[in-house]
Amino acid sequence: MKVLILGGAGMVGRNLAIRLASDGTLGGQPIEALTLFDVVAADVQGSAHMRVSAVTGDISDRATVDRLVADRPDAIFHLAAIVSGEAEADFDKGYRINLDGTRNLFEAIRAQDGYHPRVVYTSSIAVFGAPFPEAIGDEFITAPMTSYGTQKMIGELLLNDYSRRGIFDGIGIRLPTIAVRPGKPNKAASGFFSGIIREPLAGQDAVLPVDDDVRHWVASPASATGFLLHAATMDTAPLGARRCLTMPGLSVTVGEMIAALGEVAGPEAVARIRRQPDPVIRGIVAGWPRNFDAARAAGFGFAADASFQDIIRAHIRDSEAAQ
Amino acid sequence: MKVLILGGAGMVGRNLAIRLASDGTLGGQPIEALTLFDVVAADVQGSAHMRVSAVTGDISDRATVDRLVADRPDAIFHLAAIVSGEAEADFDKGYRINLDGTRNLFEAIRAQDGYHPRVVYTSSIAVFGAPFPEAIGDEFITAPMTSYGTQKMIGELLLNDYSRRGIFDGIGIRLPTIAVRPGKPNKAASGFFSGIIREPLAGQDAVLPVDDDVRHWVASPASATGFLLHAATMDTAPLGARRCLTMPGLSVTVGEMIAALGEVAGPEAVARIRRQPDPVIRGIVAGWPRNFDAARAAGFGFAADASFQDIIRAHIRDSEAAQ
Repeated sequence: MKVLILGGAGMVGRNLAIRLASDGTLGGQPIEALTLFDVVAADVQGSAHMRVSAVTGDISDRATVDRLVADRPDAIFHLAAIVSGEAEADFDKGYRINLDGTRNLFEAIRAQDGYHPRVVYTSSIAVFGAPFPEAIGDEFITAPMTSYGTQKMIGELLLNDYSRRGIFDGIGIRLPTIAVRPGKPNKAASGFFSGIIREPLAGQDAVLPVDDDVRHWVASPASATGFLLHAATMDTAPLGARRCLTMPGLSVTVGEMIAALGEVAGPEAVARIRRQPDPVIRGIVAGWPRNFDAARAAGFGFAADASFQDIIRAHIRDSEAAQ
Repeated sequence: MKVLILGGAGMVGRNLAIRLASDGTLGGQPIEALTLFDVVAADVQGSAHMRVSAVTGDISDRATVDRLVADRPDAIFHLAAIVSGEAEADFDKGYRINLDGTRNLFEAIRAQDGYHPRVVYTSSIAVFGAPFPEAIGDEFITAPMTSYGTQKMIGELLLNDYSRRGIFDGIGIRLPTIAVRPGKPNKAASGFFSGIIREPLAGQDAVLPVDDDVRHWVASPASATGFLLHAATMDTAPLGARRCLTMPGLSVTVGEMIAALGEVAGPEAVARIRRQPDPVIRGIVAGWPRNFDAARAAGFGFAADASFQDIIRAHIRDSEAAQ
C-alpha cells in the first residue's frame, strides 16, 4: 500500500513516519511507498522494502496537491497546518493553508475517478470555545474562538460531508496538547507544559509562567502516533455522520505534573523550575479547555496514557535513545 | 443610509424589500438607496425618497461582489443561497454559491479600508443533525447531515470569526420553515406545510403526504421580515463570540395546523385536504428537527408568531391585499 503524510516534517508527522518505517505495515498491509510532504524537506530514511520520499511544496497550490494525489495513496494523513498563534497573526495565511489547503486536498481526491482513500485529519480542541463545562463531552457545541479553531472546524465539517458523499473515508481526531515535546523550547503559549519537564531532565532551568493549579489536557507523542495509526485502520462505519472525535488524554494540573517529575526524577529536577508569572500567557491559557470526557473515542478503542509519570518515563527513554 | 440585499428576488428578500421601501427607514435612519441583488432581476418599486435598484449577477464571481460592496452599504442582508435539495443534487454549485459566494462577500468587505457594515446572514436549522433531543437548545451541537447544512454552518463559523476580528458586525439567524408561503406550490419537500393551508383557502385541493402527528418548526413570512429587521438594528455586543441564533418559531403538528384551518376557515376548507402518504417525503421529513428552545433569541428580543391561527389570518389578509 501507499501512504502519504501531509505535514511530514513536523513533530507529529515525523514520529508517525518513523513508526511506519519501523513497522513496515499499516493495518497488516505492507507499505511499499511512504511520501512525506511539507514546506521543508522531511528527514527521511527508506529501507529495502519501502520507498520513502520527501516532497516539498505548498498545499494552497491545487496543482501541487493534484500531483501528490495522482499517485493514489491508500491512506492520507493530513497533519499540515498553520498553528494557532500564526493563524491569528496572519489572517490570510491561516485561511489559505488551513482552509484552502484542506479543500484542495479533498477536491483533488474527488477529481480522481473510482478512488476512495482513508483520510486521517488532525483537528484540534481549539474547535471548542468558552464557557466550558467541568469536562467537555462529545455532544458539546463546537464554537471556536480563534481563526485556527474556525479553520479546523471548517475542515471537520468538510470531512464529514465529503465522507457522507462517499468521496473518501474520512476520520478527524482532535489531539490534546502534546507533552513532553522533544527538542528545543518553542514560542508557543503552551510550550511551558513540555518545558517544565524537558529542561529540568536535561539539567537546565525552566520557567513556569502560570499558577500550579492550572489544569490542562495532554497526551504523549507516542499516544499521538498511536491515535493516528488507529484512526487509519479502524472500521469507520460505526462513526456514522459524525466522523470527528476528541482524543483521550490526561487532565492534569501543573502541580500534578511537577509532583510527577519529583517522583520520577527527584527534588533536584523540581528545583530547576522557576516560577515567573506572565500575565499574557496566563490570560491565553485561561481560555483553554481543561478537561474532556472523550467517551466516544474510548468506545472506538483510542486509549490515553496511563499516567503523567509514564509520560515522563517515556520521554526519558526516547531522549536516551536519540542520543 | 444604504442597504444591500443579496438574494433580493426570493420570497424572503422581496418581503424585506417591500417592508424597507414602505418604512423608508432602518433603525430610525432614512434609507437613501436600496440595492436588490439576485440571479434574476428583482421586481422593484422606488419612491421619491429612496432609490431602489435591481442588480443581477453571480456571487461566486468575486469581481461582481466587489462592485456591490464598493458602494459601502451600511447594512447588508445576505440571503442568497442554493437551497437544500439543489445543494444536495449539485455538489459543485452548492459549494460555489453557498461557501465561495459567502466568502467572496466577507472578503470583499475586508478589502475595503475603514468599512464596518452590519451583516445579517440567514442560516438554517439544517446546521443541526439527528439524533435530536425533544427540543433543541442554544447549546446543542451543530452537526449538519446535508451539504446545504454544512455550507450554512461554515458561513456561521466565518461570520463569527470575521466579526471577532472586527472586519464587520455580523449576526446570523437560523430561520424556521416559512409558512404560509404565498404563491404557487413548489417542489420543496416542505412545500406541503404551506400547501395544506394556502390551497384550501384559495378553493383548491391540497395533498398531505405525511401523517397528522408530524411536528414541525414554522414562522410566518411577516415574522421572517421582523427577524431580519431586528437583527439589522439590535445591539450585537451582548452576543459575544456566538453571533448566530436559532430564531423563535411555533412547533406545531400537521393535525394542529389543520385544526387551526378549520377554526379560521371552516370545515369546507379542511375537506379540501387529501391524505396521500408519500414514503419519500415522509422519510425526508422524519430527519428534520421538530422543536427548539430558542431562549437566547427570545432574550435578545426576537419574538415568534402568537399562534398558527394568527399565521393563517395574516396569510388571508396578505392574499386579499395582493389582489
